[in-house]
Parts: sequence; structure tokens; C-alpha cells
Amino acid sequence: MSGDPRLARLSLNQATVKRASVAEAVDGCARHGIPAIGLWREPVAEAGLERTRKLVADAGLRVSSLCRGGFLTAADPAGRAAALADNRRAIDEAAELGAACLVLVVGGLPDGDRDLVATRGRMAEVITELADYAAQRRVRLALEPMHPVFCADRGVLSTLAQALDVAEPLAADAVGVVVDALHVWWDPDLDRQVARAGQRIASYQVCDWITPLPADVLLGRGLPGDGHVDFDRLGRLVSAAGYTGDVEVEVFNAEIWAADPDEVLAEMVRRYLTLVLPSLT
Amino acid sequence: MSGDPRLARLSLNQATVKRASVAEAVDGCARHGIPAIGLWREPVAEAGLERTRKLVADAGLRVSSLCRGGFLTAADPAGRAAALADNRRAIDEAAELGAACLVLVVGGLPDGDRDLVATRGRMAEVITELADYAAQRRVRLALEPMHPVFCADRGVLSTLAQALDVAEPLAADAVGVVVDALHVWWDPDLDRQVARAGQRIASYQVCDWITPLPADVLLGRGLPGDGHVDFDRLGRLVSAAGYTGDVEVEVFNAEIWAADPDEVLAEMVRRYLTLVLPSLT
Repeated sequence: MSGDPRLARLSLNQATVKRASVAEAVDGCARHGIPAIGLWREPVAEAGLERTRKLVADAGLRVSSLCRGGFLTAADPAGRAAALADNRRAIDEAAELGAACLVLVVGGLPDGDRDLVATRGRMAEVITELADYAAQRRVRLALEPMHPVFCADRGVLSTLAQALDVAEPLAADAVGVVVDALHVWWDPDLDRQVARAGQRIASYQVCDWITPLPADVLLGRGLPGDGHVDFDRLGRLVSAAGYTGDVEVEVFNAEIWAADPDEVLAEMVRRYLTLVLPSLT
Repeated sequence: MSGDPRLARLSLNQATVKRASVAEAVDGCARHGIPAIGLWREPVAEAGLERTRKLVADAGLRVSSLCRGGFLTAADPAGRAAALADNRRAIDEAAELGAACLVLVVGGLPDGDRDLVATRGRMAEVITELADYAAQRRVRLALEPMHPVFCADRGVLSTLAQALDVAEPLAADAVGVVVDALHVWWDPDLDRQVARAGQRIASYQVCDWITPLPADVLLGRGLPGDGHVDFDRLGRLVSAAGYTGDVEVEVFNAEIWAADPDEVLAEMVRRYLTLVLPSLT
């Protein structure tokens, strides 16, 4: 695929056009000159893995990520075994799709469990166990630190520092980290941790922190420019750390999901060009 | 005031019974054997400062804190001057009331401003400027790191580490920090930072992180036991750091505000005895 060279690093994370099928999302990328896509397992399963692979290949797109594995915090052996099995399948799918990484949302506290330290310990163990399997299939796991608003129910991995503590004992080509603007923008230690991440950065995702938060905080995300994040600063940090990969726009937002996907993609390209690209080197 | 010695460190933060006047809250403390109160400036202003002082003294209560000063992040000189003037008044009021500390909620990003680093820098400058005034009046400022969900619009001070970085260059008896369970429970660096805080801990506040969050995230707080916080662990950390002061129960919650205040106080005492006190030494 050839196109506007300014868009060479732009990727559409499929969640931004949640209602679109894989075929529709791929077609949208092609028509808007977006050379990469971040796929989600559920719509990929609906479309079929082999058909997805072919759709993406025929459109000449890169797969910047597969979203997502994770939910690794079960305290019971059966829950842990189920999580390992599901994540091995996700790794296989990522390999099949040629995805640059498999994003892991690690999971929250088990129901009724308040032992955050132990939960985080189990999470790190399971990631260590998965890293070998991922390395054998040449898939890179991308640990996603999540904003602390999600710590209880979605992701006990809360900071880039913590993600790097988990990743660093493991091979860098098997385990990296996600720098997602929404999740890390508030971190007082951001400069130091992005620099520390260096070649561990497996994905840079952009979406904005908006206020007031909607009733469902999971959907409290905006396109770059709609909220409080300083994308210029973050882009400089990520670039200085050596990241030269794709930049995914991943926005969960009920209004954006309800809008015409073509308008969403056009606006996403405009925001990328004006607010994200200028700080990337 | 004499009473159940097990309640010797318990304090009612007035926000937990938001609809009660100072007189009603003081009376509630007396009837439930709660020996300390955390006052808020707005109801104190309604009751009158001198009358509040007398009500509290007559009931034999300690004032564990005055809430709150802060909102120090204005970028314009007029906004900064207004914030300084208001905080000096708050310091005077805290001195008049004999409050153990003045809690500071530092404020969010100014409207339309995305420069979090500069905003945090201004915040630290203003606190440094206020510290002298506070020291002269023998009032201790208590910097409250706030959960990152509030970073954009309420408090750019996001972690205990960051609060200690601001506080440590200043006199320990003039500037301390608040350990509020709701704000710090998720922090992967909690053990180390509470230990580092040591004698800087000016207040230990307890309330629980509940899910799902209500539409107004500010009111997403529960009594200890209603959410995900491990109060046993946090109490041990705070005690090991040397904190022997009052423990304030501060819960913003629409249902609790609508309930009979006497039932709220009775339940608060029960939760304190069963979930908070056992880990305090």
C-alpha cells in the first residue's frame, strides 16, 4: 500500500470503530490511507482468522497489534489454567496474523479479594510463564499499564515502572510494554519511565483523557485534542526513547461509535497530523 | 471527653455527614464516643469560627484536620494571588481551631492548559511560599496526593512519592502528607513511599474504593469494607512508619449522605473497630 507518507506510522485500532466488521475496518483504512490496523480478537473470530489474514494482506496493511490477551489474575488453579490456555490461543492468533504484538490487559482483583500485592505477584508469574510460549512463536507480548481508575476491576498493572519491573527479567523481544496516553499521562515519573522503557516500547497508543468522565468510565476517552493530554510532550518522550513503530489511535467512546465511521477516520487522520505526528521523530 | 478507649484515635471527617451542621456533627461525635473531628471550612464559616471553636472545646473533641486549602495551580498572577490569600485565611482558621493540620487539595490543570509539568511546578512553588506562613502560625500543611482519576480537574499531585518530593525540602512540622486510602491504595510503590513518609504523615484517612463507580466519580467512595481496599495492609504500613495520630473516616457518598446520620456514625464505629483498628499499633 502506498499513500500519504505523513501517515506512514498511523494505525487504526479497531476499537475506535467498534461497530465495523474487520472487512469494513480494513476497507476504511485503505480508503483513508491508513497503513496499519490494530485488530481485536472478537471481530477477528467473527470474520475468521484466515479470512482476516487475507483481508489485511490484500489491503497491504500491517497489523500493529492484536488486542487482547490478559486477565491473568485468577487465584484458583482452574481459573489460572483457563487464562493460560486462552492466552496461548491469543498468541497463536497473533502469530497467524503477523501482529507486531499481543496487547495484554492483565486483569483486576478477583471477586472479593483485596490482596493487591498477591494478585500482582500472580500476574507477574503468569506473564513469565507465557513469555516462553510467545518467544517460541515469535510473538511479542505488550504489557499495558492501565490508569489506576481501572486497578480494581480491569488491570492491576498500574504504572509503566511496574510494567517494566515485570518485563525486564524477560527477553525484550518476547515482552514489551504499551505506552497508552490515556493510561500514563498523569504519571509524575513519566519522563524517566518512558526513557527507561526504551526498546521495550512495543506500542504507542493515543487517546485523550476527557472530563467530565461519562457514567461508564471505560468509555471516557476522546480523540487527541478533546481532552487534557499533552501529546506533544508524550510524542517527544516516546521518540527520544527510540520508538519508531506504529501509532495506534484507540478511542472507546459511545458518541464516536455512533458516528459515521468515515467521518471518524477522516477526523482521526486530521488529529493525528496536527497533534500527534509533529512530535514524532 | 472519656469513652471507649478503642476509639481513642477515631475521627469523624465532617464530609461523611455532609448535611449535618457543625453543631450536629460535634453532637454526633459526643454521643458515639468519637473523640476527634475533621472540620470543613464551609460549614465552619456557616457556624462561625469562634462558635465552632467553642462547640468543639465544650465537647472535648480534638480537631484532627481542617479541610481544606489548596487549588494552587492558577497560571495567571491574579489567580495565584487569590489562591495565596485564600490559603493564608485557611491557615489562620486552622490555627484558630487548633487543627492538627490543614489538608491541601492542590488543584487540577487550568482550563484548556495541558502542561502538566509546568502546572505541577507552580503548585510546588506556591506550597513553598505558604509553608513559611504556616510555620509562623504553627499550622501543619498536609499535602494530599489524589487518585489519578482526579489529576485533570482536581489534584495534579498524584502519588505519595510526588507529595514527598514537594514536602521534603520544607520543614517537617510545617509540611506533611495525607495518606488517604482511597487515593493511594492502588500504588505499586506504596510500601516504600509510606515508609519514606515516616513522620511526614500528617493524617491517615480511610474510605474505600468501590466499583462500579457512580456517575459522579467524586462520590465513588464507601465505608471501609464496602470496596477493594486492604485496610489491614495499609494500617500496618502507616503504623510501621510511626504514625500514631488520628484516623479520619472521610466518605463522600450520596447514599450515606441521605441516610440517618446516627446510623452512619454507628456503622462507621463498627467498621473502624473491625477493619481499621486491628492493624494499628
